Parts: sequence; structure tokens; C-alpha cells
Amino acid sequence: MLRAVGRHLVWTVDASVEGVHFERRWLSLAEVGARSFHAAVSDLAAMGARPVAALSSLVVPPSLGAAAIRRIAAGQAGAARELRCPVVGGNLSRGHELSVTTTAIGVSRRPLTRAGARAGDEVWLVGAVGLAAAGLAWLRSGRTTPGLPDARSRRAVAACVAAWTRPTALVRDGLRIARVAHAAIDVSDGLAGDVGHVAEASRVRIVIEEPALRTLLGPELLRACEVLKLDALSLALSGGEDYALVAAGPSKSRPPRARRIGRVEKGAGARLEAEDGKLRPLGSGFDHFSGRS
Amino acid sequence: MLRAVGRHLVWTVDASVEGVHFERRWLSLAEVGARSFHAAVSDLAAMGARPVAALSSLVVPPSLGAAAIRRIAAGQAGAARELRCPVVGGNLSRGHELSVTTTAIGVSRRPLTRAGARAGDEVWLVGAVGLAAAGLAWLRSGRTTPGLPDARSRRAVAACVAAWTRPTALVRDGLRIARVAHAAIDVSDGLAGDVGHVAEASRVRIVIEEPALRTLLGPELLRACEVLKLDALSLALSGGEDYALVAAGPSKSRPPRARRIGRVEKGAGARLEAEDGKLRPLGSGFDHFSGRS
Repeated sequence: MLRAVGRHLVWTVDASVEGVHFERRWLSLAEVGARSFHAAVSDLAAMGARPVAALSSLVVPPSLGAAAIRRIAAGQAGAARELRCPVVGGNLSRGHELSVTTTAIGVSRRPLTRAGARAGDEVWLVGAVGLAAAGLAWLRSGRTTPGLPDARSRRAVAACVAAWTRPTALVRDGLRIARVAHAAIDVSDGLAGDVGHVAEASRVRIVIEEPALRTLLGPELLRACEVLKLDALSLALSGGEDYALVAAGPSKSRPPRARRIGRVEKGAGARLEAEDGKLRPLGSGFDHFSGRS
Repeated sequence: MLRAVGRHLVWTVDASVEGVHFERRWLSLAEVGARSFHAAVSDLAAMGARPVAALSSLVVPPSLGAAAIRRIAAGQAGAARELRCPVVGGNLSRGHELSVTTTAIGVSRRPLTRAGARAGDEVWLVGAVGLAAAGLAWLRSGRTTPGLPDARSRRAVAACVAAWTRPTALVRDGLRIARVAHAAIDVSDGLAGDVGHVAEASRVRIVIEEPALRTLLGPELLRACEVLKLDALSLALSGGEDYALVAAGPSKSRPPRARRIGRVEKGAGARLEAEDGKLRPLGSGFDHFSGRS
């Protein structure tokens, strides 16, 4: 039970389903709990809200038993402490597949949505993109880091795997962004798709500037992509689950950790602008129903 | 997004999982949506809250497709209109088993919990108990109503099946109860178990008076139990999912549709008092992990 407060309430629900969002061989049960909790709270961060409380609804196969439930709950509790968002209740069901559904409430003086980006705004990125997708690609490959040729590759791959297994909701950045931005979203489905959501909701065109985005691809992502033989820019554009924040706001107000990656124009859709000024459409991101998961 | 109001907010989450809470052959997809919605809002009703809004999180097998999702959503929308609790957002994931998780928020001037029942209170029941369990037993039997000997039996069985497939959250009764009662709960797991929860949270003994409860067992339940060769009193005590309300409050304030079924005393635990005054312990109700589902 919550006492109502004199601010806007924002509210979200998010599900993590075994076999869709994760495989148990890739994560400890505590990580399953913590990861789904951060994913849910990330949505509050994108709205510029301070988390207040969460409810958890677990579906657990009977084969897992009480110890497994305690481990998931311990992961949730750790994330709840870190994000100052206590789990105040929940629900437990059995089922054939493990899933963790988290609903969280936050408060905001001035909540951000996907709508509100204006022509003339900059597009900002806070946090990394592409690392989690590289980490997931590595986990899917079934390879192990001792087989890698050098320590730099091992560290790069480990950083990507950690980005996927232990993401962090950027709550403080969201609060800073909300003071100055016109619209925001968290990158859960992939930068290209999520920027497209903002463009659609705001009825504007969003142009991501490839050179600006390239400068933000860190050495760990680049190294991991060499190992995995993947294109770092593609992962940065289409890979989800880093829980970075993207926002649109006026250049003069850009917050400390926000990096410019593009601009908002009149028009519609999301575009990628290459170094030579050529524009190409940005496809949609991660779609749970496309089987690309 | 919700604007905060100057009252208490109450909040709940509930999951309906295929194979655990329902089988698809027993329900239309619209009924799956409506039923899970009423089950979630019933928890708000028990807290004496007026529903404000809900979020829905669906996990849907890819084989079901978009039309199925629309049918579930139509059932949720119908329940939302009926309960004046709009679905303001949600989440969609694929998964192997169909599940519907509903989180709902309500407001209350004076929210009720399981704690607060006092020695000297009456125990009240609003709504029927046992019908849904009889309906579920019928659905499980695989029998069909044309095989029944007479129209009275067919009507009785149909009423029990409807109680299970199309329950109603007793929101108005919950609001009335909240004005006068000291504690309340909705009967989701079975009267015996749920009364036990109130006794434990309130640190009192609750005595259910068998003769009083027997007078509330309607002709449809009695007839259906004859057909099913089940004991009506046992179903009334242990069968869940009718979403009746049980509350404890002072005799002089008993609301219109509330019926006395027992009393609160100093002590601990839940007891059933037979006609001759003998007390026996009331066992716990429906346990999703016991395999009794």
C-alpha cells in the first residue's frame, strides 16, 4: 500500500520469460531476478521518475523449488536496494516456464514520454549501446573465454556478457534528463527501433548521425565484435537490452553524461546519416514476435 | 501515467497461467482475459478500493497469433468497462505457455487489510462460495450437460461453470465494507485458508459457524454437488476462485449484502464450529504448489 503524493505517478510492467528473454544456463537465478528488476525500472528512468516501489509476479516450475525462489528474490532484493525501489508485495504461481514479471511505480515532477521531441532538438544517448547484444551473441555461441587468444579479448567479451547479464537502470540520468529534455525512451528493443518509436509518437523525423554514434562505440565493443565477427555499428543500432537512455532536448541544456548522436527535424521516421550526408531509413529493432529474439 | 490523488493508493498484481489456473478448452480467450482481470481487481475490492487503472502483461505462444491477442484484449476491455478500471498500458512477450498478468491500482479513503479483525467482531461473507470449485470439478470431469437427467441439474451445473469462467470482482461491496469493517480478504484460495490468513494477520481466532454457513449454500451448489457426488460444505470451505469477500466488523454495522458466518475471538487460528458446538481446525485452502490446483 502506498500513500499518494502530490506529484505525477508513473507506472510500468515488464516480463522476463525463460527461453525468450533469457536462458537459465546463461544467468544465475539471482541475476534473473536482478536483471528483470532493472529492466522494469529502466522504463521509469526513461520517464524521468524516481522509483517508489515494485511488485513481483513469479511463475516458477515446480521442479525449481523454494531455494530457487529465494535466489530469484535475493537478486530482486539486491536490485531493489541499489535502485531504492523496495519490493512491497507480489504473487507466486507455478507454471512450466520460469518468468518474472515486475511492475514498478515511480514519481516525477515532470514525466517524460516518447512524444514531445521537437524539430531543432538534439538527440542524446546516455550509456552504452551494443554491448549487451554482443554479450548475448557470445553466450549463444557457446564459446568460453579461455579459448580466446589474448587478455584484451577476454576482458572485452566479459564486459559485453556483463552488460547483458547485469544491466543497470539509469535512474539518476533519467532524473537529470527529465529536467531539460522534451522526450525520452530506454533502449530495450534496439536504438534504431526505439528512436523510431520517439519519431512516431512525437511526429518528427529523427536523424542519427553515424559519425557521432561511431565515436561512442568503446574499445570493448569493437574488440568483442572482432572476436565475434559482427559489425559494431549494426549491434549499436539494432541490439537491445543495454538499457541506455535516448532523449531529445535543446542543445544548450544537454546534461553531463548525455552525448549527442543526432538531431530532430520536421518530417517523419528515423534515418541514419552517413559521413557523406546520405540518409538511409533505420529499420525497427528487436521484435519478440519475429523470432529474432 | 496517473496523477496522484489525495487518498491512499492500493496496488496489486495477479497472474493467470495456462495449465495452472485454467485450461484453454474450458474458456474462450475473451473469458481468459476477463477472468484474470476480475481476479486482479478483486484484490482491490477486498481492500475497499475503487479501481483506477490497470496494466496488462501477456505472454502468448507464437502459435496463437495476433487474432488471439485481440480476443484476450477484448475480454480485458469488457471487464475494464464493467469495473471502470481502464487498461492504460501493458507488455507483450512470446512464451511457450499463455499467461495473463494484471496489475491494478485503486484508491481508498481507508484501505482494509487482513490485519485489524478484533475479538467481538462478526465474520461476514458477501457473495457465493463453492460454486466456482463445483464448476471447475465439472469442467475437469469432461462431462457435458446434455447427459444430465433433468433441467434443474443442467441449470445448476451451468451456474457453477459460469461462476468459475466468469467471476465478478465485488467492487461495490468492497467499498461498502471498507466504511465499517476492520479487516477483509477476497476468497481466492478457499474460505478456510483465506480466513486463516485474516486470523494470522490480525492475531485473533476466527470461528466459522457451520450452521450459518450451511444456510448460505444455495440450491444450485447443492444440486451440482449431488450430480458431482461432492460435499457442498467442503467445497464452500476449500474451493477458491469465486472471489467472494470475507470481512470482520461490528455486528451493528453489517452492510446490506453481508451475511454473518462466524465470529472473531481472542486466540489464534481458524476453527469450524459444528451445530453441537464442537470446534475443529480449518485446514488451509488451495495451494498452487501442492499440485491440488
